[in-house]
Amino acid sequence: MNLTQPLHKALVERPRAEALLCAGRRSDWAGFVDRVARLAAVLRDLGVQPGDRVGMLGLNSDHYVAFLYATWWAGAVINPVNIRWSAKEIAYSLDDCDTRLLLVDEHFHGATAGLQSLSKSLATLVHWGQGPAPEGALDGPALVAAAAPTDDLGRGGSDLAAVMYTGGTTGRPKGVMLSHANLYCNVLSANLAAQRPAESVGINCAPMFHVGGMALALQLIQRLCRQVILPGFDELPVLEAIAAERGTETFLVPTMLKRLIEHPRFAEFDCSSMQLVLYGAAPIAEALLAAAQAALPAAGFCQLYGMTELSPVVTALPAWCHAPGQPAARLRSVGRPVPIAEVRIVDADDRPLPPGQVGEIVVRGPLVMQGYWGQREQTAQALRGGWMHTGDGGRMDADGFFYVVDRLKDMIVSGGENVYSAEVENAIAQLPQVSLAAVIGVPDERWGERVHAVVVLRPGQALGADALIAHCRTQIAGYKCPRSVEFRDALPITAAGKIQKVELRAPFWAGLSRRVN
Amino acid sequence: MNLTQPLHKALVERPRAEALLCAGRRSDWAGFVDRVARLAAVLRDLGVQPGDRVGMLGLNSDHYVAFLYATWWAGAVINPVNIRWSAKEIAYSLDDCDTRLLLVDEHFHGATAGLQSLSKSLATLVHWGQGPAPEGALDGPALVAAAAPTDDLGRGGSDLAAVMYTGGTTGRPKGVMLSHANLYCNVLSANLAAQRPAESVGINCAPMFHVGGMALALQLIQRLCRQVILPGFDELPVLEAIAAERGTETFLVPTMLKRLIEHPRFAEFDCSSMQLVLYGAAPIAEALLAAAQAALPAAGFCQLYGMTELSPVVTALPAWCHAPGQPAARLRSVGRPVPIAEVRIVDADDRPLPPGQVGEIVVRGPLVMQGYWGQREQTAQALRGGWMHTGDGGRMDADGFFYVVDRLKDMIVSGGENVYSAEVENAIAQLPQVSLAAVIGVPDERWGERVHAVVVLRPGQALGADALIAHCRTQIAGYKCPRSVEFRDALPITAAGKIQKVELRAPFWAGLSRRVN
Repeated sequence: MNLTQPLHKALVERPRAEALLCAGRRSDWAGFVDRVARLAAVLRDLGVQPGDRVGMLGLNSDHYVAFLYATWWAGAVINPVNIRWSAKEIAYSLDDCDTRLLLVDEHFHGATAGLQSLSKSLATLVHWGQGPAPEGALDGPALVAAAAPTDDLGRGGSDLAAVMYTGGTTGRPKGVMLSHANLYCNVLSANLAAQRPAESVGINCAPMFHVGGMALALQLIQRLCRQVILPGFDELPVLEAIAAERGTETFLVPTMLKRLIEHPRFAEFDCSSMQLVLYGAAPIAEALLAAAQAALPAAGFCQLYGMTELSPVVTALPAWCHAPGQPAARLRSVGRPVPIAEVRIVDADDRPLPPGQVGEIVVRGPLVMQGYWGQREQTAQALRGGWMHTGDGGRMDADGFFYVVDRLKDMIVSGGENVYSAEVENAIAQLPQVSLAAVIGVPDERWGERVHAVVVLRPGQALGADALIAHCRTQIAGYKCPRSVEFRDALPITAAGKIQKVELRAPFWAGLSRRVN
Repeated sequence: MNLTQPLHKALVERPRAEALLCAGRRSDWAGFVDRVARLAAVLRDLGVQPGDRVGMLGLNSDHYVAFLYATWWAGAVINPVNIRWSAKEIAYSLDDCDTRLLLVDEHFHGATAGLQSLSKSLATLVHWGQGPAPEGALDGPALVAAAAPTDDLGRGGSDLAAVMYTGGTTGRPKGVMLSHANLYCNVLSANLAAQRPAESVGINCAPMFHVGGMALALQLIQRLCRQVILPGFDELPVLEAIAAERGTETFLVPTMLKRLIEHPRFAEFDCSSMQLVLYGAAPIAEALLAAAQAALPAAGFCQLYGMTELSPVVTALPAWCHAPGQPAARLRSVGRPVPIAEVRIVDADDRPLPPGQVGEIVVRGPLVMQGYWGQREQTAQALRGGWMHTGDGGRMDADGFFYVVDRLKDMIVSGGENVYSAEVENAIAQLPQVSLAAVIGVPDERWGERVHAVVVLRPGQALGADALIAHCRTQIAGYKCPRSVEFRDALPITAAGKIQKVELRAPFWAGLSRRVN
């Protein structure tokens, strides 16, 4: 069970078939594997030992995919750096797991000097991308051209393959440790659960420093399918790639899908080849699904739910659940557990809850991470009883479909009733005047917690608290409606784009202790 | 990675959905798991320790499936006994791996006394099926009814899950050791490679003591699909089950498929639900494929190639390769390697051969067995260099499709040319007078080996050697045609139904040494 296995297969089964297309550069499998084996030789020449971490700071590219596989080929461990973080946060994530060698592509040359001064562990910087190397960095492509391909060290099974830093919305980033077997099994299982097209052509525009984009690359490579790699999501390049390369399979979040099919030039592109749209991060609205089905008539739609700690795919809502005639309410579901995932809903004491009841989503199986790097207590807490505690609140229906209702710590208990902040935020977000809304629980003598909304209006818009609450009453039950509203110019946002509710809650709870789920 | 995982999933996701239907007995998942957990308790009460082997001698049934999972639930190792073997051969396979407890169903009561006297290891016999227990055996169903369900011991990963005896055509049966991870990965991979229907209903009539029938049961259970279990293949019960239960997926060998669709009452049964016919053991003839596609218009066809030592599926020729317009020659192929299998063709010195050249098929990956029980030398020989040596002669075409040409040891080298006995046998078998034919290499001063045919004619038929050879000349190249023909009344056949070519060759090679591939 080693992640480089598909490369060895490809060398035998289809060495001259195209593997990657990026920015006009086409690699066949033999060429790609040659590049991987040479970069692995360079890494080892630079002192990388089996088990060492190798970082990369870059946009999606064929170079990025080569970094992943070359690191594994050399027996080492990838640390894909979050490109949205500040230099300080990146330095923290490098130092935390002692990453000494960092690859940097042409888009991040400007960050290198800062990183070198901020990071204690960083010893070697290698340019790995297009164009010349920046000051203080080795020229990766030149070294690779001069290197002889090395043999695959053949690490696999429980050997560590990745340390991936997730920030979440609280505290320091944590390094999620994933083994070869974790990722290997998840790739198989996610390929199986989503009923992939045969002989697929992937369009990969999801960020690869994130486990979602990386997983799509791995899922395609495991099936020896070719993929078009785009530096990120942008409507026109995605449409152009689908049309020019007869793309069959892609991964988007629903807002990207909406932008794609509503693009004014959509009709100019032949997207009839698209067979499978994987989507994640949020359910798909009925109206968007209908529009997408009309725009991409050959495509099935499949939602995936996951998290880094779970390698990452946990559940899938497969294409047949999106077909006409299936219950519309199920589109709010994240689907059923993939074959390798055992999923349960438990209460605060880890007792399983019956269908319909909301509790924490916990997961068991070969997809569960090895732990958080250097965080014994947080690991033990997250993995207590042998189950990964996701921190997501959810429920299961009578047919075994799971629904994520809220992050557990964002759930509000008001007058003995659970209120899911996400549900209230969705109601508020329907108001055209609203740009952003965060709903939190604040201390209340009568209700325990009170539903409180912090709202940012769109420029030039006006709205009163009463009107906002009155709107909510038309959408959701009375006990879920905000009892107080606060308007602000901005909300605190993390580097990953999440609202920092901890910060919003802090002044209200100073000196008080809030229940912890 | 433990084989009981789907049972835990089913208890959460669909406890009241039907899991098994056998002889009118319907079990939902909760009921099936309860039975498994009770039988596991009985096994442990009877002294079965983690890692111990538990055997079963029986036809396919829900009892058989419960045996598999209860043994794993108890942390033990299955030894599914070959029902076609003689009592002496069965006793050998029990004793070889020290199997002390054997379950026997109602069809094999007559064998128990003989086994008890022949086997040294057998200490406990448990009746596990319908009706009363035979003399000297414990009453399994009664014990299970009185037992309290026990907890799953949670064995998995590299822990041993199965010892499966394969006879082959030479020597003593060997116990193939498969781990939980071997079978777990292969089930995932085989499910993925064959593009299974969603929410499938399996019709399982392949013998479960064989890894093929067992694998189908596991593949369906991993996806939490229900299955109809038939004691064996018989046209009418299969047709009845498909029609009555809306069967979607089954596994057959081509001759069974032929019998099924040519059955005089075929048209009486509604087989429109059938979506996937998996087949193995032989390629499908074009005419049969066309007839089957006409008879089962909603079905895809998928060939699987494998062997016990590989857990078992190695390659798949998926449904799209059977579609009209695809190259007909490819139907002779066993397909492409499944995602977890690295497959190569190598020469006698284990050097990889280029596409088109015939050599030995070798395989690497998490599907490769742990070894042969107690056979260090045979294990080292079979797994040399980290590759499973299949003993099958084969080649790969330029598109990465593999073809099995013959068992290596049955290949004949005549005048420097390779002759594949299977090809010659196929040519002879076209003659309507011929019942059975075996082609072997015998010593020849001029040619090294000479192509020699041993033929059994159908009752009342007459055919001369010259006419047989003349027919072959119209079908295959001259150097492949038999140079000598011998007519006999019968051929030596193994318990598994294979012709014992070793025995046929022996008198010719007495005192001489034949090259070994």
